[in-house]
Amino acid sequence: MRKENRLIWWIRWIVIVTALLLLGFTLGWFAKPTPPGAANESPSSKYLKDFLEGMQPEQIRQHLRKFTRLPHLAGTEQNLRYAEQIRKEWLEFGLDAVEMVPYDVLLSYPNKSQPNYISIVDEFGSEVFNTSLVEPVPEGYEDVADIVPPYSAFSAKGQPEGDLVYVNYGRTEDFFQLEEMNITVTGRIVIVRYGQIFRGNKVKNAMSAGAKGIIMFSDPADYSAAGVQPYPDGWNLPGGGAQRGNVLRLDGAGDPLTPGYPAKEYTHRLSLENAVGLPNIPVHPIGYHDAVHLLKNMGGQIPPNNWKGALDVSYRIGPGFKEDFKSQKVRMNIHTYSQVTRIYNVIGRIRGALEPDRYVILGGHRDAWVFGGIDPMSGAAVVHEAVRGFGLLRSKGWRPRRTLIFASWDAEEFGLQGSTEWAEDNAKVLQERAVAYVNADSAIEGMYTLRVDCTPSLHTLVYNLTKQIASPEEGEEGISLYDSWHKRDNWTADRDAPRISKLGSGSDFEAYFIRLGIAAARARYTKDRKTELYSSYPVYHSVYETFEVVDKFYDPTFRRLRAVAQVRGGLVFQLADSQLLPLDVEQYADSLGTYAQSIAREAKKHPEEMERYKVSFDSLFSAVKNFSVAAGGFHERLQTLDRADPLQVRVMNDQLMYLERAFIDPLGLPGRPFYRHVIFAPSRHNKYVGQSFPGINDELFNIKNSADPRKAWEEVKRQISIAAFTVHAAAMTLTPPA
Amino acid sequence: MRKENRLIWWIRWIVIVTALLLLGFTLGWFAKPTPPGAANESPSSKYLKDFLEGMQPEQIRQHLRKFTRLPHLAGTEQNLRYAEQIRKEWLEFGLDAVEMVPYDVLLSYPNKSQPNYISIVDEFGSEVFNTSLVEPVPEGYEDVADIVPPYSAFSAKGQPEGDLVYVNYGRTEDFFQLEEMNITVTGRIVIVRYGQIFRGNKVKNAMSAGAKGIIMFSDPADYSAAGVQPYPDGWNLPGGGAQRGNVLRLDGAGDPLTPGYPAKEYTHRLSLENAVGLPNIPVHPIGYHDAVHLLKNMGGQIPPNNWKGALDVSYRIGPGFKEDFKSQKVRMNIHTYSQVTRIYNVIGRIRGALEPDRYVILGGHRDAWVFGGIDPMSGAAVVHEAVRGFGLLRSKGWRPRRTLIFASWDAEEFGLQGSTEWAEDNAKVLQERAVAYVNADSAIEGMYTLRVDCTPSLHTLVYNLTKQIASPEEGEEGISLYDSWHKRDNWTADRDAPRISKLGSGSDFEAYFIRLGIAAARARYTKDRKTELYSSYPVYHSVYETFEVVDKFYDPTFRRLRAVAQVRGGLVFQLADSQLLPLDVEQYADSLGTYAQSIAREAKKHPEEMERYKVSFDSLFSAVKNFSVAAGGFHERLQTLDRADPLQVRVMNDQLMYLERAFIDPLGLPGRPFYRHVIFAPSRHNKYVGQSFPGINDELFNIKNSADPRKAWEEVKRQISIAAFTVHAAAMTLTPPA
Repeated sequence: MRKENRLIWWIRWIVIVTALLLLGFTLGWFAKPTPPGAANESPSSKYLKDFLEGMQPEQIRQHLRKFTRLPHLAGTEQNLRYAEQIRKEWLEFGLDAVEMVPYDVLLSYPNKSQPNYISIVDEFGSEVFNTSLVEPVPEGYEDVADIVPPYSAFSAKGQPEGDLVYVNYGRTEDFFQLEEMNITVTGRIVIVRYGQIFRGNKVKNAMSAGAKGIIMFSDPADYSAAGVQPYPDGWNLPGGGAQRGNVLRLDGAGDPLTPGYPAKEYTHRLSLENAVGLPNIPVHPIGYHDAVHLLKNMGGQIPPNNWKGALDVSYRIGPGFKEDFKSQKVRMNIHTYSQVTRIYNVIGRIRGALEPDRYVILGGHRDAWVFGGIDPMSGAAVVHEAVRGFGLLRSKGWRPRRTLIFASWDAEEFGLQGSTEWAEDNAKVLQERAVAYVNADSAIEGMYTLRVDCTPSLHTLVYNLTKQIASPEEGEEGISLYDSWHKRDNWTADRDAPRISKLGSGSDFEAYFIRLGIAAARARYTKDRKTELYSSYPVYHSVYETFEVVDKFYDPTFRRLRAVAQVRGGLVFQLADSQLLPLDVEQYADSLGTYAQSIAREAKKHPEEMERYKVSFDSLFSAVKNFSVAAGGFHERLQTLDRADPLQVRVMNDQLMYLERAFIDPLGLPGRPFYRHVIFAPSRHNKYVGQSFPGINDELFNIKNSADPRKAWEEVKRQISIAAFTVHAAAMTLTPPA
Repeated sequence: MRKENRLIWWIRWIVIVTALLLLGFTLGWFAKPTPPGAANESPSSKYLKDFLEGMQPEQIRQHLRKFTRLPHLAGTEQNLRYAEQIRKEWLEFGLDAVEMVPYDVLLSYPNKSQPNYISIVDEFGSEVFNTSLVEPVPEGYEDVADIVPPYSAFSAKGQPEGDLVYVNYGRTEDFFQLEEMNITVTGRIVIVRYGQIFRGNKVKNAMSAGAKGIIMFSDPADYSAAGVQPYPDGWNLPGGGAQRGNVLRLDGAGDPLTPGYPAKEYTHRLSLENAVGLPNIPVHPIGYHDAVHLLKNMGGQIPPNNWKGALDVSYRIGPGFKEDFKSQKVRMNIHTYSQVTRIYNVIGRIRGALEPDRYVILGGHRDAWVFGGIDPMSGAAVVHEAVRGFGLLRSKGWRPRRTLIFASWDAEEFGLQGSTEWAEDNAKVLQERAVAYVNADSAIEGMYTLRVDCTPSLHTLVYNLTKQIASPEEGEEGISLYDSWHKRDNWTADRDAPRISKLGSGSDFEAYFIRLGIAAARARYTKDRKTELYSSYPVYHSVYETFEVVDKFYDPTFRRLRAVAQVRGGLVFQLADSQLLPLDVEQYADSLGTYAQSIAREAKKHPEEMERYKVSFDSLFSAVKNFSVAAGGFHERLQTLDRADPLQVRVMNDQLMYLERAFIDPLGLPGRPFYRHVIFAPSRHNKYVGQSFPGINDELFNIKNSADPRKAWEEVKRQISIAAFTVHAAAMTLTPPA
């Protein structure tokens, strides 16, 4: 053979052998069955990167623009239209299925032919002053119909007349102080400023004190930021603006007529008299321009300094007006009515590839008091963008391991009704299948940094995720959201990490977390809580919550909203697509330890009683220790888990999923049957605040007013015992299953 | 080549090729990973056969002999000793782990120094007659200590004195009839015969009617079979025998001091005054020899014929004695006391090979009033034999797919306390993981045929299994238990199959089925319900429940007990080892249809009211139809399921497992927070009887006595709505999960 031929021969042989080897290798590669569910980690993190990068500020801007042009109060035609539009677009984005889910719930509206207002009437009964019937309409929206005037939803009807008494924020402690000053509100009308606590609690406190009506006003001290102009020149509340809102005390019941069951066509309804949580006195909100008129002539005692707001009045307590105005009374004219009304949730789904029966939910409300520029559409726009992002991944062939559910809730503003009815409707399935719920209410309430409230087992995921997201702040290019957040809001006392808060209530996660025990989280952009002391954000629930307030002031680049979209979307992505659920049981153990220490410290403020009634926290500490050991053991077993065995993986994931469920007491908290989470509940005094060990906490709080301390301390002991049992039982769910 | 050589050459080649093919095939066979959990069906049915054949009558006889030598009342030393022995033997049989699980619950005992008895006292206060303090001890047991005398556990203490009133069985209808006769029991002592309803209901009815004490006696009409001698010559109750038993009305609460929570050392306890279900009047049981003395001189009206028992007395109603005896009164002397006492469950486990987190439970109680010859040791002996059988399989290398749990409960006789406390202790884990609960109380109460009470989804498994078991009856060699049972107790009206009853209560399945919603079943050998009309079995809860009563009369060959062991053991075997859970959702659909028809028929007895108050069952029928469609669809998908995919199999098994759970309403039935199953609950009037749609049923029953019919019918409507919702929700659990 010639050299050349020889070479060719060799090349031929090498090619053939290589080709055969390759063929064999390829055959072998594809012949070998991949155990379902095994080792899909790497593609998942690649898709996560794509997903996070896919979120676009301009898209979010357009979503927000689109859904804030018209008022869309729950139960109105326009809110149904937006629902239909969302349904259509989610389908276009690529969800597998999107459905409209209606319920018929009790809503409350002002009477169109008899407006609500408050008058000062003179001795002859003539109205010498009336509060405004509407807010001045913001520029650009002059031709818009159906702007509901400021009102307190579910107020009782009535025209009570009497002397005013000013009771600061209307908190429990404010009414106590009033009592100490020997001023009674019985048969009088209470006027309080908005802020500090949920308005429904103010109303309840006024009712308990015997008031026959309550007026709530927005004081600039609580609804203006320093150095900021009122809208439209800035984002402060103008004097003509007022805060709408419901004044129910539902404690998780959802529709007031169908507590515990979904409000379907066939569902039996309570009579209005038996409805849950409706106040029985008239309630009305006003702005500070109107408030000045009611307050300026008030007589009576000078109030404590911390009762004084920022208006140019003396904030005298009353009762009634001073000297020359003594004969004048205040009359409320309230004609608001309740009515069973159809609402619509929009529910979209991407079916899980391997575990279709495991649900990760991203839900937020759509209904708004007026335009909903911030509340809720800044959140809804973020969800819309996340859905678009997931649709893009779908078009690249991705399908999550678990099922993703997206929800656009209705009637949140009327007491979390859409989300609660759906939770009631699907309770049995959710209890068995829901991995986590991420809430998407207003995505921005300030311009400072991230704010996250979540269950302890999600802390680690939140930290890991925010390290993969860029800071949206100008001048922080190349810095992670985590670092940006950390430097602005460090959890100093507890640990060196960004602060994460406990979940309270006041948004749609309530039924999922506090009633059903599904791990939950919420995230938004917020203000600097150390320096910006006003309540929520100034234009909250006013007509001035427009697209422009976000576009001009809160987030002109829409990069803050993108960051929130990345957090909310990234959370559900990882919960739905990780082979092992990213839930940290050791973090839950740590948090339980902290909470137990803290509640015991609270009780130890009564050392004598603890001695006398033999109150001990030993059982709780021992349970927490037991939980820690179980969590540690669980964590160790995770390390040695055979990830190629789909059943073994499922068994451990089930333990992770059901951990939060283990904290549910089917008997509920004392007097609050729909708040069933033994570790977390909204404070009885302000539902926005999360409380740990609420059963014990509540009883301890009641101690000081108890007529029968022995009985009260017995109840404390009972609650400690329930808490200890629950923590033990939760620990048991983490031990090897057999 | 020579022909021979050629042949050899061919043979060589064929051998080499075949060998290579075989080698390749073998390599391929073993190289291919079997997905865990796939295709283990065939070996399982072989092991089932071994298991069923392994059950031995003589072994059961020995187990029964061993555990009935000494009295072993709950809370006594001897019952702990038996617990320890069971623990030891279960470990020897081959269980993976066996633990003793103690609780500290409220039990009730007679005062040893002040015996309970009833006297007739003359006008001077002298006791002219006293009831016996003890039952005559049966032959062979003369030297036995610690036989507790007949008493009513949890009776109030006291020595009420007054006239007797005879109220037949003490049922609601008996007290109504008494009222119609214008006889009041207020301030008097009621005497009733045992039978027809649970004794706790008799006591409750007497209390409600105002009686100050209640005496219960065993009438031969209710506790003797025709042509049978009293023990020891036969199995009838002798005149000196009396029925012990608790008189609580717990409605599922378990330990009366710790409702809802396990009675652990750290658990907070209610005060005795707040304890659940304790009667507040003295109660005492007597035999018919003593009853004759109390009844024979009674005066007053002649009773209706159906109030007459089989004693040679007139059964006059009273109040009080006739003519010459008028001045005599009856005095009860009751010194029974309650005490928190430690009890012990024994819990054994065989870890599941593939799904260790799925639990199949076989549980029955161990505590007995005295020897427990029938109740419960005939059942405990059967469980013991089943455990031995499973141990034998283990030694052959078998391990079930799912975890098997065996329980020997304590303090069942005091209100299902051991089983309920363990259910409370493990509620969270059981809710997530329990597949089924098979109950093992008394295995034999008659000599006629099999009796099964179970949830509808288990009907099919019970039928299939009993076809694989031989009839234990003499002369029925070669006939299956199914055929033997079918020919004796056909379900005529409903369908041509052996009758299966609804589960009521009165044994340890209660917390598992009615509170937690775990599919449940019980099986025992029973009497002919068409001809043998006496209550339970004659020697029930007397000292004459000995080993001998079984060995001599009920089952001399122990083949009936073997058949029960095969049924109970076979059920848990198949539930634990089948790849697909043997639960029939279509049967549940059929049963729901029957129950809905039946409750609607009941309501239609009030056609005018149904019209007037607009009561309709349409929503319930529509829900049942929806359920049927979902069940049909589910069944179809089962046929096309890829059984080689462990996750797909698990997903469907989870749907099967959680179906029963879907019928649980966390809010409980009206007034019965621990009875939470919307489809089944014990009747309010007799807990032994199972009721379907109990919420609707109860309200319908109350209609006729309601002072406010509008309100009563509103409540009926509310209950229909809850039932419809629950059935819809259960249907939802059967649809494809995403």
